[in-house]
Amino acid sequence: MPEFDLIERLRSRIRERGDVPLGIGDDAALVQPPPGEQLAITTDTLNSGVHFPPETLPADLGWKTLAVNLSDLAAMGAQPRWCTLSLSLPREDAAWLSAFADGFIALADAHGIALVGGDTTRGPLSTSVTAIGSVVPGGALRRDGAQVGDQIWVTGQPGEAAAALALWQAGRLDVTQVAGEPVHERLRQRLLRPSPRVQAGLRLRGLAHACVDISDGLLADLGHVCARSGVGAELSLPALPPISAPLATAPAQLHAWQLGGGDDYELCFTAAPTRHEAIVQALGSAGVAATPIGRIVSGHGIVVRDQAGHPWQPPRQGYQHFVG
Amino acid sequence: MPEFDLIERLRSRIRERGDVPLGIGDDAALVQPPPGEQLAITTDTLNSGVHFPPETLPADLGWKTLAVNLSDLAAMGAQPRWCTLSLSLPREDAAWLSAFADGFIALADAHGIALVGGDTTRGPLSTSVTAIGSVVPGGALRRDGAQVGDQIWVTGQPGEAAAALALWQAGRLDVTQVAGEPVHERLRQRLLRPSPRVQAGLRLRGLAHACVDISDGLLADLGHVCARSGVGAELSLPALPPISAPLATAPAQLHAWQLGGGDDYELCFTAAPTRHEAIVQALGSAGVAATPIGRIVSGHGIVVRDQAGHPWQPPRQGYQHFVG
Repeated sequence: MPEFDLIERLRSRIRERGDVPLGIGDDAALVQPPPGEQLAITTDTLNSGVHFPPETLPADLGWKTLAVNLSDLAAMGAQPRWCTLSLSLPREDAAWLSAFADGFIALADAHGIALVGGDTTRGPLSTSVTAIGSVVPGGALRRDGAQVGDQIWVTGQPGEAAAALALWQAGRLDVTQVAGEPVHERLRQRLLRPSPRVQAGLRLRGLAHACVDISDGLLADLGHVCARSGVGAELSLPALPPISAPLATAPAQLHAWQLGGGDDYELCFTAAPTRHEAIVQALGSAGVAATPIGRIVSGHGIVVRDQAGHPWQPPRQGYQHFVG
Repeated sequence: MPEFDLIERLRSRIRERGDVPLGIGDDAALVQPPPGEQLAITTDTLNSGVHFPPETLPADLGWKTLAVNLSDLAAMGAQPRWCTLSLSLPREDAAWLSAFADGFIALADAHGIALVGGDTTRGPLSTSVTAIGSVVPGGALRRDGAQVGDQIWVTGQPGEAAAALALWQAGRLDVTQVAGEPVHERLRQRLLRPSPRVQAGLRLRGLAHACVDISDGLLADLGHVCARSGVGAELSLPALPPISAPLATAPAQLHAWQLGGGDDYELCFTAAPTRHEAIVQALGSAGVAATPIGRIVSGHGIVVRDQAGHPWQPPRQGYQHFVG
């Protein structure tokens, strides 16, 4: 079914490059890794009704399916190089495929990642991307390098994707069109068009001790860093960057989104306090804001303290995927 | 859902190796490519009811989902290195996951390919693997190198997977258990436990001019080689290796399976006639039989000639996937 073949469709839109001696069209693609570098490899799958609302626009889905993988490369401080794309689609739909391709290619071109293969199959709507980046040996940002005394930072405003999800679930956000209200449109974009922090990740190499991207929620993902590094963490509730959209919601709900919401694709990283200024400058040059929100301590687990210094108990941990 | 996480489950069963400085458990894995080599990258997805019978045993599915990707690396003459695995599963099922893992790991270990990442998601049953192999620059077997005068070869007995599929569709082959009859068991294995011709592909480097694996059917896949190489082909119907199981079926049906059946994962390759003996020896040392079935001619398209030299018209082209 050539009309149905997204990969064949995308082939003509992909520029030739020196690090792809053989692109789409053979049993496998051939790529040329940068001499001496290591490769970072990641895979993420998105299923309709589980990871995105079934009515998500195809261009948004094309964007997001690549964004969640680029975010993993960002968290490693890796330079995006090549990717593959598997798409399962229930029926042939040329207009749908064309819009999906537009969203995918727009983000791929923005980050210089080359699509080198994949397949289009008939089945329930689902996408799976494998992304490969490169990094010099020893240069990768890992989860296991956090040190006691490190500052904990987060980019952007985590919680906005969860706020958008809640609005959608409450029937107050239509994801199938650009929202009329600017406030809602910003949230819609945070949910469906996340910006992977690739440039931020690259500039944090040599500055951050540990890094993770926020896909499962700030507490859950920082928890992974703590577990892998053998340390604990203290977070300051008032230090969390506020959700930028003014929402008529109880503060406890806002904090739950900030600490437990998933799908943000911001970076959470730790670094020596002496690197504070260097980090602000490095991220500023990447156009990304970051906020110190706590510090790494000995022990294990994460304590969140409120304005008065009392431990605060979040109402939920982590992120519940859509149930479609 | 850690119990549900296949990748976490598999982690403890994967040996450490020098070319995987950081395995499963971070935002991405880190791998170290062999100095100076190129990498071959391929992805294939299998959807329940489309690419395999819904009742397929989990161990068979674990095997096959990796086999179809290893077959693509084999067709490139690439040495398998690393892979990722995405699994979507409708519900938590520890026994199912365990059996799936057994089948996957058995084949991975046999070919020395390391699982370095992936994800387990909730959704309709589907698997997607990305496999990466290595090859010295200029050493890959491509589809575009066939030359006029080349012999055309095929490994094994293409058509057996299609015969097994037809038996299953006719209710005469139970895929959920080892078949009682040896004839049927051999066919069941050809459909569900294909042997990717990795060693054969490695030994064909420097001997074959072009190579493809037979996933869509011999005529369809040889057609890809011809189109990419700008040549035509003539095949000899009596030269085709016979389906090994004696089936009470009209010869026309047998020929249709041999020429049009998919899912065989044998290799079809072309080489100079002067390399005949070298090829027999090289493949023999890999334990693989191969048969010369025709030759590359100028022009385009494929002509199949019967015993009398008359053109033979296959009743169908290519391979129809299951309709579940």
